[in-house]
Amino acid sequence: MKIALDAMGGDNAPQVPIMGGIQAVKEYGVKVFFVGEPEVLKKELSKYSFPKSLVEVVPADQIVEMGEQPSKAVKKKNSSIHVGMELVKNKTADAFVSAGNTGAVMAVSFFVLGRLKGVERPAISAVLPNMRKTATLLLDVGANVDCKPYHLLQFAVMGETYARYVFSCQTPKVGLLNIGEEEGKGNELAKETYQLLKKATEKGLNFAGNAEGRDIYSGKFDVIVCDGFVGNVALKLSESLAKIFAKILKEEINNYFISRLGAITLKPAIKSFRRRIDYAEWGGAPLLGVKGAVIISYGSSNSKAIKNAIRTACQFAEMNINERIEENIARFGTD
Amino acid sequence: MKIALDAMGGDNAPQVPIMGGIQAVKEYGVKVFFVGEPEVLKKELSKYSFPKSLVEVVPADQIVEMGEQPSKAVKKKNSSIHVGMELVKNKTADAFVSAGNTGAVMAVSFFVLGRLKGVERPAISAVLPNMRKTATLLLDVGANVDCKPYHLLQFAVMGETYARYVFSCQTPKVGLLNIGEEEGKGNELAKETYQLLKKATEKGLNFAGNAEGRDIYSGKFDVIVCDGFVGNVALKLSESLAKIFAKILKEEINNYFISRLGAITLKPAIKSFRRRIDYAEWGGAPLLGVKGAVIISYGSSNSKAIKNAIRTACQFAEMNINERIEENIARFGTD
Repeated sequence: MKIALDAMGGDNAPQVPIMGGIQAVKEYGVKVFFVGEPEVLKKELSKYSFPKSLVEVVPADQIVEMGEQPSKAVKKKNSSIHVGMELVKNKTADAFVSAGNTGAVMAVSFFVLGRLKGVERPAISAVLPNMRKTATLLLDVGANVDCKPYHLLQFAVMGETYARYVFSCQTPKVGLLNIGEEEGKGNELAKETYQLLKKATEKGLNFAGNAEGRDIYSGKFDVIVCDGFVGNVALKLSESLAKIFAKILKEEINNYFISRLGAITLKPAIKSFRRRIDYAEWGGAPLLGVKGAVIISYGSSNSKAIKNAIRTACQFAEMNINERIEENIARFGTD
Repeated sequence: MKIALDAMGGDNAPQVPIMGGIQAVKEYGVKVFFVGEPEVLKKELSKYSFPKSLVEVVPADQIVEMGEQPSKAVKKKNSSIHVGMELVKNKTADAFVSAGNTGAVMAVSFFVLGRLKGVERPAISAVLPNMRKTATLLLDVGANVDCKPYHLLQFAVMGETYARYVFSCQTPKVGLLNIGEEEGKGNELAKETYQLLKKATEKGLNFAGNAEGRDIYSGKFDVIVCDGFVGNVALKLSESLAKIFAKILKEEINNYFISRLGAITLKPAIKSFRRRIDYAEWGGAPLLGVKGAVIISYGSSNSKAIKNAIRTACQFAEMNINERIEENIARFGTD
């Protein structure tokens, strides 16, 4: 496997992507193309030892800032995002990983790679831990803020295909994010989407009904579809709550002398707690619906998150997910 | 103050509403009308001692089930919800509190009390704790799943008025729930609402811009408006995460022998942690926009939650919130 890595993307670039990339090289034996400003990357890479054959620097001298408008970013033909995506297009690399500007990665991927056959709207999907200790795929989490029922049907098909092969989940249960369990609940979009999904069960889609907010992390569903507005709010809310709970717990422990004493014995439990709610374990967000394997990692990713995103990118490319998505869109994804 | 309490509403009725109602009678010296099946209530009340003058049983012999369709519930003219609402309408009581079927409480309140002058869509607002240790009002959380920008403007005005008087917040900061901070972000509804709220700042509304999912609990805003679909998903998601974090922490503590030993010293911290994230402290969800003070408490409320909901109901009624909402809707709430 050969992975193109945006070495200039993320809040702590190039240090963190390079550290994560090198970890992936050593741990998975994968080849990584580090895309970015060559002088900067070579200097940073010189801090590490690694098999030379598995590391290559690919020059890209423009930088897309984290807050930059996607429409502007698309015009930077020599940015690390653009050059990395080209490596995938011309088959030099099998997949692209970036912790950079999400909107820009998305826009450039549409522009350079194009959409899969039959897919109207590509979607960003978040891989979330759940109470069954498996993963739940939530999509869309921000690419499409105004959706039609037909788009959500396609998200369901793409998400179901991804979960089946990458999560090794035989028949992923698909849920529709809604405000109640019963059929007939929800806004116009949800009500119409319900009918489309129900119809698709006749062709074999495993639609398991409405998922409420409380089901996102319950593990009751393997895939949950929603429009990108709701998905984005839910994702950012969850991340903030994970941080808030950890912070409140720490504050309260510090408030009580006796608890401070006991806290030291809690370290293994707290460490394991943090690992279970840590996004970095889960390997980034696959962009589904474009002609290529693209994984978007958090801007604030640490090196472990980058390494895990590379692992996910390898799975995405190995499993021929995109070919299977095209087949399934033709089978289920038309109304 | 005189409060009508739905003694038949909630998962653990009538025991829990009665216990909470009696606690409120004793703690706040408020008069409570316990509305429901008289024989059942009298038997349950006989377990407590209380000042006789502050407790009255008001008969209502129909019950609205938790899962019942609101349209059916409205027809039960002798339900505890209906009879309690009538007590408010005819000024026997100053406010109504129910932990019963939310949709039914809402529907009956529209039917019996009607809407405030100028208000097109009443909204359910959730009172959430935040990191500044104040409260944030999130609305709508489920009454209106398909909204127009104009409705969100009215939610902003109603929420701002409520926060100003009940939270004693001099100039509440109003945020619009969105997927990015910058103007121009979001779906069609959010983009158009942004413009209406911006225009209302000229008349004195303190609109402080877009709030992202992560801002719901940050304390950056005192009031956050959204449509009832997104609000409901966000609310149920938050509640489930609070439970999930507590559960994971407990599991991890039990997994480590040494942590189990230390856990006993942590009890005061954990107790305080739970109190800070406990909905029961925050006193229920005000229904804004109807002619009367109505507080909806969680179906799973414990007696403390009921007691606190009664406290909130007293504040709601005392402050003439509804009169002020009508004034402010006339001032800001028209486009």
